[in-house]
Amino acid sequence: MTRKEFRDLSSLAEAQEVVSGLDVSPGTELVALEDARGRVLTERVDADLDVPGFDRASMDGYAVRARDTFGATEADPVVLDRAGTVHAGETPDVSVSPGECVEVSTGAVVPDGADAVVMVERTVERESGDRIEVRTAVAPGEDVMVAGADVAAGERALGPGTRLTSREIGLLSALGVADVPVRAKPRVGIVSTGDELVRPGEPLDSSRGEIHDVNTYTIAAGVEEAGGDPVLYPHAGDSEAEMERQLRTAADECDLVLSSGSTSASAVDVVYRVVEDRGELLLHGVAVKPGKPMLVGELGGSAYVGLPGYPVSALTIFRTFVAPKIRDAAGQPTPPSATVTGRMSARERYGEGRTRLMPVGLVADGDGDTLVYPVDKGSGATTSLVEADGVVTVDADTDYLDAGERVEVQLFSPDVRPPALLGVGEDDPALSRVLDGVRGPRYLSFGTREGLRRLRDGLPDVAVASGPLDRDVPGDELASWTREWGLVTAPDGPDSLAALVDGDYRFVNRTTASGLRTSLDAALSDLAADRDTDSLTERIDGYDFTVKAHASPPRKVLAGRADAGLGLRATADDLGLDFVPLGHEPVRVFVNPERREKPGVAALTSALADLDAVLADLPGYDR
Amino acid sequence: MTRKEFRDLSSLAEAQEVVSGLDVSPGTELVALEDARGRVLTERVDADLDVPGFDRASMDGYAVRARDTFGATEADPVVLDRAGTVHAGETPDVSVSPGECVEVSTGAVVPDGADAVVMVERTVERESGDRIEVRTAVAPGEDVMVAGADVAAGERALGPGTRLTSREIGLLSALGVADVPVRAKPRVGIVSTGDELVRPGEPLDSSRGEIHDVNTYTIAAGVEEAGGDPVLYPHAGDSEAEMERQLRTAADECDLVLSSGSTSASAVDVVYRVVEDRGELLLHGVAVKPGKPMLVGELGGSAYVGLPGYPVSALTIFRTFVAPKIRDAAGQPTPPSATVTGRMSARERYGEGRTRLMPVGLVADGDGDTLVYPVDKGSGATTSLVEADGVVTVDADTDYLDAGERVEVQLFSPDVRPPALLGVGEDDPALSRVLDGVRGPRYLSFGTREGLRRLRDGLPDVAVASGPLDRDVPGDELASWTREWGLVTAPDGPDSLAALVDGDYRFVNRTTASGLRTSLDAALSDLAADRDTDSLTERIDGYDFTVKAHASPPRKVLAGRADAGLGLRATADDLGLDFVPLGHEPVRVFVNPERREKPGVAALTSALADLDAVLADLPGYDR
Repeated sequence: MTRKEFRDLSSLAEAQEVVSGLDVSPGTELVALEDARGRVLTERVDADLDVPGFDRASMDGYAVRARDTFGATEADPVVLDRAGTVHAGETPDVSVSPGECVEVSTGAVVPDGADAVVMVERTVERESGDRIEVRTAVAPGEDVMVAGADVAAGERALGPGTRLTSREIGLLSALGVADVPVRAKPRVGIVSTGDELVRPGEPLDSSRGEIHDVNTYTIAAGVEEAGGDPVLYPHAGDSEAEMERQLRTAADECDLVLSSGSTSASAVDVVYRVVEDRGELLLHGVAVKPGKPMLVGELGGSAYVGLPGYPVSALTIFRTFVAPKIRDAAGQPTPPSATVTGRMSARERYGEGRTRLMPVGLVADGDGDTLVYPVDKGSGATTSLVEADGVVTVDADTDYLDAGERVEVQLFSPDVRPPALLGVGEDDPALSRVLDGVRGPRYLSFGTREGLRRLRDGLPDVAVASGPLDRDVPGDELASWTREWGLVTAPDGPDSLAALVDGDYRFVNRTTASGLRTSLDAALSDLAADRDTDSLTERIDGYDFTVKAHASPPRKVLAGRADAGLGLRATADDLGLDFVPLGHEPVRVFVNPERREKPGVAALTSALADLDAVLADLPGYDR
Repeated sequence: MTRKEFRDLSSLAEAQEVVSGLDVSPGTELVALEDARGRVLTERVDADLDVPGFDRASMDGYAVRARDTFGATEADPVVLDRAGTVHAGETPDVSVSPGECVEVSTGAVVPDGADAVVMVERTVERESGDRIEVRTAVAPGEDVMVAGADVAAGERALGPGTRLTSREIGLLSALGVADVPVRAKPRVGIVSTGDELVRPGEPLDSSRGEIHDVNTYTIAAGVEEAGGDPVLYPHAGDSEAEMERQLRTAADECDLVLSSGSTSASAVDVVYRVVEDRGELLLHGVAVKPGKPMLVGELGGSAYVGLPGYPVSALTIFRTFVAPKIRDAAGQPTPPSATVTGRMSARERYGEGRTRLMPVGLVADGDGDTLVYPVDKGSGATTSLVEADGVVTVDADTDYLDAGERVEVQLFSPDVRPPALLGVGEDDPALSRVLDGVRGPRYLSFGTREGLRRLRDGLPDVAVASGPLDRDVPGDELASWTREWGLVTAPDGPDSLAALVDGDYRFVNRTTASGLRTSLDAALSDLAADRDTDSLTERIDGYDFTVKAHASPPRKVLAGRADAGLGLRATADDLGLDFVPLGHEPVRVFVNPERREKPGVAALTSALADLDAVLADLPGYDR
């Protein structure tokens, strides 16, 4: 097989041009008015009828010949004969001759002969209603909406390209349009590749290195947000032939085909084969970080874009290149709220000679301005998905962004908004329950050390610290409680810290950023001092085996992968494991003093009012 | 029947409190991850597994024992034995002993014994790949994502109340969550009342005063926009018993029931009957314009709100009182883009002692600021729906809003945005086709006179005038063309203007705001001058029968309701009617000089480049 050569990476602008030049034309479809919300008209809709189709009473009252009322006043009313009544929805069986009137309700047909309506409040019934006193003069046309006054037949109503919201749907109803010609949603096929991917809900075999498929669902949701119709193809497994079959089927059935992580040599081979058989490869590689391995091609009647594999990278490339194309094909306008500006929370170096699409998180500072901080420095973590709110585009020739520099953030989707509260610090189950009472918090459980460091840098609203603190904290204490910590053990595990040091046990520790780890290290130092030695840590098998969440070591014990883990009494009780108590450590919530007035901080303060109830539910917790 | 008395109208704030206190609790449902976009979590989701569930290679390369590579450099590489290969999705059948390495692909399980990965770019194969030169030292953990490093089992992932966008859906996929517990959408029943209403798509009998049902569809779309699930009940027709049955069924099946225009005495009787049978009437009447007849009550397990009948009033009251309640019940946050601020385009008097919810249109001025102008001064027209963008709340004690005063506009829905181009003026088919080439225009065909008046006041971007102009135009001419006008006639209609004056014909005229009317009046003046008389207009039967669109008089002729109508040759040809030519009149497009740079004006200028093609298609049109 000969391959088209792409010696140079394309620039961001070139790649955008190539993608925007793809032919993705979903055509037109007729949808029922009830289903037309959010869709886009493909043709002008002119009124085909007059609205109203008749002279319509705008008030409850009496249809009259206006000239019969001339000169009428409260003091000197005109008296007319009542010739009948017309309700809304009735054909008048009466007309109005000089000296007569007809009772009408709002919406009724104004009978022949009448050219105005006197509202009922300006009339008085006489002689059991047979004669009506009219106490005001009305002009011709008063309180009558003449036929076609709202919309006249033949008039322009809505232009092509109009996006249909509740208002336009109202006008279309008035015109009697039951089926609406709208742009079809572009069908976007998502072909899942990668031998190790398993759909959520299916069992996972970690020993085979299986992980759940993330990109298919992220991208499908992104396709919907952009106005497309995502079509998920069955996972191709590890068969190249099956992947090729899925790709060809998707190309037959869809306007655009996407795959992600198809950068392994064999997957690229398949894509090349299908693309060269049916169309043309237009781009392979773009000088953008992330996204270098991006592929763009034509597949006959369809188009193809290959996205990177890391979730944040895939979503970033999708958002930058593909979503605008889908919106355009769907006729949807760019969402007005898809960008925000803010200032960099810290200096950020770069300068790699490629355009960088830097995923960032947002946080509102005390003055209502937005702080922007980078996340996901290439870790490929799915958690970065919910830690990042959007992307800042950094030019290839920019060496750094300075702290305080204003940047524009392209949000991942228009309904993204900054978290109401940003917290960083220790992982703690009581805190997690308290946060359930706050709407829209973001909590990064990076550990006590990282929480305090970032609070010092002015980034989060609150930091949560546990264990002994060795320096001043740059914040005000909002709340505190204590938790009992120790060794969470298997039935045949160690029964004391000394036993752990001296015995033959497998241990699971927490990372050094954790306050719990600091507490353990202090206890081990005390034990070492008692024994008159420098350090005991190297005598613990697994002391350097560190995991990041409070429940992680106990869960390793539960899974039989360790005999003891550093943890909390609450977790031991929850999982039915044994517990060797080693002490109580404080958990303290510190607030950035400049953010005390922030609504999210107020919400946290209010949620902390329920702290006693939360603590009562957790063994080993106290004020 | 005794009725609860509501002597005083409630204030806006009281009514908001009553509606927000209604019990609308849709509960929880499990939805598939694919369908979870936009929904709101009802409970916290903690990770139930480690992500990844194994130590995962982050790069293509070789899994090694890090200490085996210590000291390795380009100049002085370390050589290791290659013990095997592990691809992504494979269970390792090999482990790494001292002095060995195993080839791994990105995503593969790092085999036992190895604690780091050397990327393939820093290695060289020797002896057909049996031995591998490693040209760099790696630290333990390098290019390995250890089990649980992304998400650790037991860790807090997403809190209750989280709205699910593509990002959160990505995290849930990673956690293997296939079914997501979300807030059920509140079911909102819409009961259509009013004897004269006919659903779009069904035939309309104008002689009975029938009109298409607008509010059902407008409100249903509004319910969807707020996150509810609208349920449309069959139209009850003119039967009170049927209306009562629909109301009771809706109350049984829905969380909230809405009706509109149910302010006729009989409809109110039905509502009272059902409400008092099942619950309580909480409010009848609110001191707000529009919306005075609003009803709020409880219907046992459901809630009820009665909306006004005029479409703009119904949508305004829905948006102000009901949409926030639906959003709250659905757990949806207030959309961030649902308000804009702007300045009043002209002084607006009020002072009626009731809070006013004033429907307004928006237009961007030349400086990027937003002008706000009132629409729908109680006309009840459905066209006002698409002319208004939102509502300004004017306090009861405010006598007027001054020109230039800054006001906050609550948009009808978050996806409303100001028109790209605002034009006012003459109704013209060539113009309508030109506007098809502009995305998002708003054109108010209020006639030449009104167009020029508003251009003078600085409101629209462009005004379109036809016929003779008697004063200076406050704008620059952007384009002009001519159209042939005259009498559009039935086969036995008049064959000249003189015949119309002298014969016994029924005529249909245009309104005085129309430039076409000015042209006709000039021709009649000339004829009167020829005959040495003052005026001939009173000799034309129907001279005062005026309709508003260019196609309206010809359509009246076509329908047999007149023998002749004022109109264009293009319309006569289009409808297959006869035509008596009376002249050519200019149509001119004038632009507000301060708006020349506005993108919508640029789009119009660009669309006008196709003017020749448009005119070639319309008989009687020329440059």
